[in-house]
Amino acid sequence: MPHKPKTLQRRVVARSRLFQVEAVSLRFANGVEVEYERLTPGTGSAGAVLIVPVLDDDTVLLVREYAAGTDRYELGLPKGRVEHGEEPLAAAARELREEVGYAARRLTLLRRVTLAPGYLSHQTQLVLAEELYPAYLEGDEPEALEVVPWPLSDLQGLLACEELTEARSIAALFIVREHLEI
Amino acid sequence: MPHKPKTLQRRVVARSRLFQVEAVSLRFANGVEVEYERLTPGTGSAGAVLIVPVLDDDTVLLVREYAAGTDRYELGLPKGRVEHGEEPLAAAARELREEVGYAARRLTLLRRVTLAPGYLSHQTQLVLAEELYPAYLEGDEPEALEVVPWPLSDLQGLLACEELTEARSIAALFIVREHLEI
Repeated sequence: MPHKPKTLQRRVVARSRLFQVEAVSLRFANGVEVEYERLTPGTGSAGAVLIVPVLDDDTVLLVREYAAGTDRYELGLPKGRVEHGEEPLAAAARELREEVGYAARRLTLLRRVTLAPGYLSHQTQLVLAEELYPAYLEGDEPEALEVVPWPLSDLQGLLACEELTEARSIAALFIVREHLEI
Repeated sequence: MPHKPKTLQRRVVARSRLFQVEAVSLRFANGVEVEYERLTPGTGSAGAVLIVPVLDDDTVLLVREYAAGTDRYELGLPKGRVEHGEEPLAAAARELREEVGYAARRLTLLRRVTLAPGYLSHQTQLVLAEELYPAYLEGDEPEALEVVPWPLSDLQGLLACEELTEARSIAALFIVREHLEI
């Protein structure tokens, strides 16, 4: 295991409502010094949850939602922010009701993933939601999300949809398909 | 298919060497107006490539690299920036030589993925590299990366490694395992 570089200096170089960019000066074990930039979510966020809602043992419920980052509608799994002090499963339960209109009798924390650990500190907890029942909760979405059911046994067909691009949704779908042995 | 929201205004609210944050005012088809923040890579970047190098039909070559975003060593697939005007496969060929020390007689573009399309515009092309031969190229890494071979047939064992967290690496490994029918 390599020896972690020593942080020589850290300073905030840019800040917006949601993001903060830090410049970090590091000295590696071999003496080489570099400066990197890393992005951290603004204060108030404790990471995100991504939920895989499975209905009737095989049907996964996705949402079609406008994505400001890519400026298009994207097909993906429901997700949301975890607030400070909130349990990831509580956040998952809330987002599932708001985005998909279901509650789950069983929520299982599967694993933690990162997006681009080289420059983002962001963490996402993947959550499996099973034994679903209708329980819509009004959220803060600007428009109702379209819920798109898909058989997990046809993951290849889903991956061929041009609207599904999000790596953490794709990873979560594979992980759940293995988990459920579909 | 929903009608895309209309962009009312876009302005840069924060900028650093690598990142740019834009505030975007949108009006949804139902008349609701919101302001979102989106992050775009600085100028000079045309996205990223993530390479899945496969040796001897089953052995995937990963790298252990210090990740400034999470401030720890992470296990993941080799990757790098695509420069403006550069072909993704040319970027993949370069990064493979620099990070893993191999060149490939066969590079295949698998698909494009996004990281968090809700607020990041970032795109990554996944590339399969096969028929490898040693061809190290000096890169700009501050220290040599440790190359970690792993049998793709034991993807479950790899996913159990606490150091592997990156969603796009996990997605790429599953996609290649299906593609190669391992």
